[in-house]
Amino acid sequence: MAIPVETFYLDARGQATLQARIQQMIAQGILSGRFRRGEKLPSTRKLAAHLGVSRITVTLAYTELVASDYLMSRGRSGYFVSDNAPEPPPVPALTVPADRVDWTRAIGQRFTGGAAPDKPLDWARYPYPFIYGQTDASLFDHANWRLCAVQTLGQRDFAALTSDQYDQDDPQLVEFIARHTLPRRGIIATPSQILVTMGAQNALWLAAQVLLTQRRRAAVEDPCYPALRDVLTHTRCHLSAVPVDGDGLPPELIPDGTDVIFTTPSHQSPTSATMPLARRHALLDRARALEALIVEDDYEFEMAFLRAPSPALKSLDEDGRVIYAGSFSKSLFPGLRLGYLVGSAPFIAEARALRASVLRHPPGLMQRAAAYFLSLGHYDALIRRTARAYAERRHVMEAAIAAEGLSIAGRGAHGGSSFWMQAPEDTDTDALALALRGDGVLIEPGRPFFAGDAPPGRFYRLAYSSIPSERIPEGVARIARAMR
Amino acid sequence: MAIPVETFYLDARGQATLQARIQQMIAQGILSGRFRRGEKLPSTRKLAAHLGVSRITVTLAYTELVASDYLMSRGRSGYFVSDNAPEPPPVPALTVPADRVDWTRAIGQRFTGGAAPDKPLDWARYPYPFIYGQTDASLFDHANWRLCAVQTLGQRDFAALTSDQYDQDDPQLVEFIARHTLPRRGIIATPSQILVTMGAQNALWLAAQVLLTQRRRAAVEDPCYPALRDVLTHTRCHLSAVPVDGDGLPPELIPDGTDVIFTTPSHQSPTSATMPLARRHALLDRARALEALIVEDDYEFEMAFLRAPSPALKSLDEDGRVIYAGSFSKSLFPGLRLGYLVGSAPFIAEARALRASVLRHPPGLMQRAAAYFLSLGHYDALIRRTARAYAERRHVMEAAIAAEGLSIAGRGAHGGSSFWMQAPEDTDTDALALALRGDGVLIEPGRPFFAGDAPPGRFYRLAYSSIPSERIPEGVARIARAMR
Repeated sequence: MAIPVETFYLDARGQATLQARIQQMIAQGILSGRFRRGEKLPSTRKLAAHLGVSRITVTLAYTELVASDYLMSRGRSGYFVSDNAPEPPPVPALTVPADRVDWTRAIGQRFTGGAAPDKPLDWARYPYPFIYGQTDASLFDHANWRLCAVQTLGQRDFAALTSDQYDQDDPQLVEFIARHTLPRRGIIATPSQILVTMGAQNALWLAAQVLLTQRRRAAVEDPCYPALRDVLTHTRCHLSAVPVDGDGLPPELIPDGTDVIFTTPSHQSPTSATMPLARRHALLDRARALEALIVEDDYEFEMAFLRAPSPALKSLDEDGRVIYAGSFSKSLFPGLRLGYLVGSAPFIAEARALRASVLRHPPGLMQRAAAYFLSLGHYDALIRRTARAYAERRHVMEAAIAAEGLSIAGRGAHGGSSFWMQAPEDTDTDALALALRGDGVLIEPGRPFFAGDAPPGRFYRLAYSSIPSERIPEGVARIARAMR
Repeated sequence: MAIPVETFYLDARGQATLQARIQQMIAQGILSGRFRRGEKLPSTRKLAAHLGVSRITVTLAYTELVASDYLMSRGRSGYFVSDNAPEPPPVPALTVPADRVDWTRAIGQRFTGGAAPDKPLDWARYPYPFIYGQTDASLFDHANWRLCAVQTLGQRDFAALTSDQYDQDDPQLVEFIARHTLPRRGIIATPSQILVTMGAQNALWLAAQVLLTQRRRAAVEDPCYPALRDVLTHTRCHLSAVPVDGDGLPPELIPDGTDVIFTTPSHQSPTSATMPLARRHALLDRARALEALIVEDDYEFEMAFLRAPSPALKSLDEDGRVIYAGSFSKSLFPGLRLGYLVGSAPFIAEARALRASVLRHPPGLMQRAAAYFLSLGHYDALIRRTARAYAERRHVMEAAIAAEGLSIAGRGAHGGSSFWMQAPEDTDTDALALALRGDGVLIEPGRPFFAGDAPPGRFYRLAYSSIPSERIPEGVARIARAMR
């Protein structure tokens, strides 16, 4: 590969001779790892013209660098980085000067330090990945996804999809969500009540920013999705963690004065509890009494394969006080980064303005490809196939868990993709998870889901969304073995 | 198209008879626009099973709806929405009950009301679009972009690109930015100093959140990119607008006590002024004296076609106090939503954690497709082709502007994609732009770029990034005519 001449800059304030500064520039490029062995340098003529120096100066610099074995000359082919050139040091910080900035002072707001789960990016290489929220490539309809994306890349959609849409969404995707996705949850919404987001994470983040301030009070389930608790903590609102039971969030425990309630009625995250219809009505009544809003995170609603799902809270909402967050990440794949918010138009208008300020809009290509995939029926077929596979895996899981004497702490009434598990008292599932990794098994320790300083250490999550049925019994057996 | 049975929900608390509630449910679906003329309803058997009612109840409901011409029966094919069914009212709010939420109170933070420019989404339909920041489909290398995206959609990359990457970027894209993109601006950075963002907008937003609080002081150019001023206003920091001159931001005018300086040295936005090297050094010296950080927005650096670009501020920065924001939106296309931040590792770590909280990561597909397009050399070829076209258009623009007696207020020393124009005193360019739209000409009024309550009304921007050369003379002539 040739090194483009545009990547060469002489320090205009350098003190050494021109030739020495050229030599330094090239040697530094090699030592910093930017120029690699065998790469071709610009011709002396080109570099001289680019730097505005005489050609002989460049030739002399190159010759010196050949003598010191940084470069090699290949006659008429020109100059190349030598095969014997010094390798950059393993810590590539050599040419980066030490900062004179006190970052402890300069950083105004910190966002690191949240409960980021320690999940391996190479999870697919583990033979027993009971990992949650990743795609099973064997279930995904890759061929049709590819066709839809390729169609989107065609000339016809090009202008529309490459444009800056300012704060707008793809109307085809919004229409599909309004006409087909939401009615399955009993929700009726117009386009002005829908906002496309970068996944459910982005939907929850936007809702939190619009609704919460330092003076507001939010209630969140305990345990809950750790990234949601981080989002709420960053808003600096007053935050109450409300312990869930086997039916999800108990309305009567939501403190007086609460302004916004965050809940996961379909599959409580992470316990998988499904909120019964009577409690859904009670929760709405409680919210009405509090004059509070509800943010309903329905991150996994398609995974209802045991029986028909309950209607969403939003579908029962006669007041406009429920804001609904949905996602295509679990049902398509997380790398898609597409979800949506549904709520009253004044709320959606603020969320839309904030989204425009933060990132403008999700890429047009992803929105349109998803719209094709949904509207051509591939999505429904995929959901059916996934549901069949999950139902079978769940059945195998239940049998294996029973056979090994492990105990389930929570499971969804309608399906879902995981079990919430309870190890014997005094088990430290952080240590257990670490030990199991060495045995090829990935489980998710439960501590990060809990609020407070002394989270219980005995819980863990076992998902079956990314592990084939035939691996499940041995995987569960290994967990039981490690626990003993 | 058949209406899926899953989209039907009976209100469990309804008071009417079952049959009446089914009729209402279907009529409401039609009146709300969810079910459209000619669409097929589920069979009576299927709907009865789904709702848990007797089949005869559904049949009676359907029969009633046929009688009232909401539905039509096609014998053994089943029931369809009638061709004479009532059309939904033009304002589709009929079935959405009025909110009982006081949104004035419920919304904690407002984000609407910013200086959102009134740019038409259908700009491509105007014959004389002097519009800024949109793609010219005739210049873009659509074929190779498509090939790269299709390659990304292949089986090989699938697992990697569909996964949830938590807070990580595509390593191939980051490596390309580090080894090829940044060195062209004289910048050396390691992967821990680079963060991929959703375009430059997202990069600036992230930097503002990490660096600013209510107690910090930021300086921004006046005029400047309006969306940046909105971002800074939302942080509630103390904000000083510093008037730029023909060389961009004057360092000596930056107020004492400033913590963060936002600047656009390559092409001042919107005046196009290029900051000379001496002033770049003076700006760094001023920042050092203030112990301030600089956020350098180099949104258009590839568009240097008149002469070699000046080194970026970041390349002259020995202290680590410059944070550099780059974008592929101008050079590839805005719908890509890809840009990057370069800065010291402690800063990048905070920006990365914030990005993960807000949206996790830009979609893997977009990142990898861009990495292929860049690394296969298509990007460099595209930049060269675009630069040639812009150079020609700029030449035609200058001639037409001179011929029509219009006056240029600012132009980039190295190129760029627009002229900053000055109309005769007392011209209202908002009104001018509106009048010109009726004549097929799009220009951008200058008011939204200025801080303060009395922005001057005589400036406007003429971009040549989306208008073919042959249209330029007539377009400029129409502007001159409208001005008279």
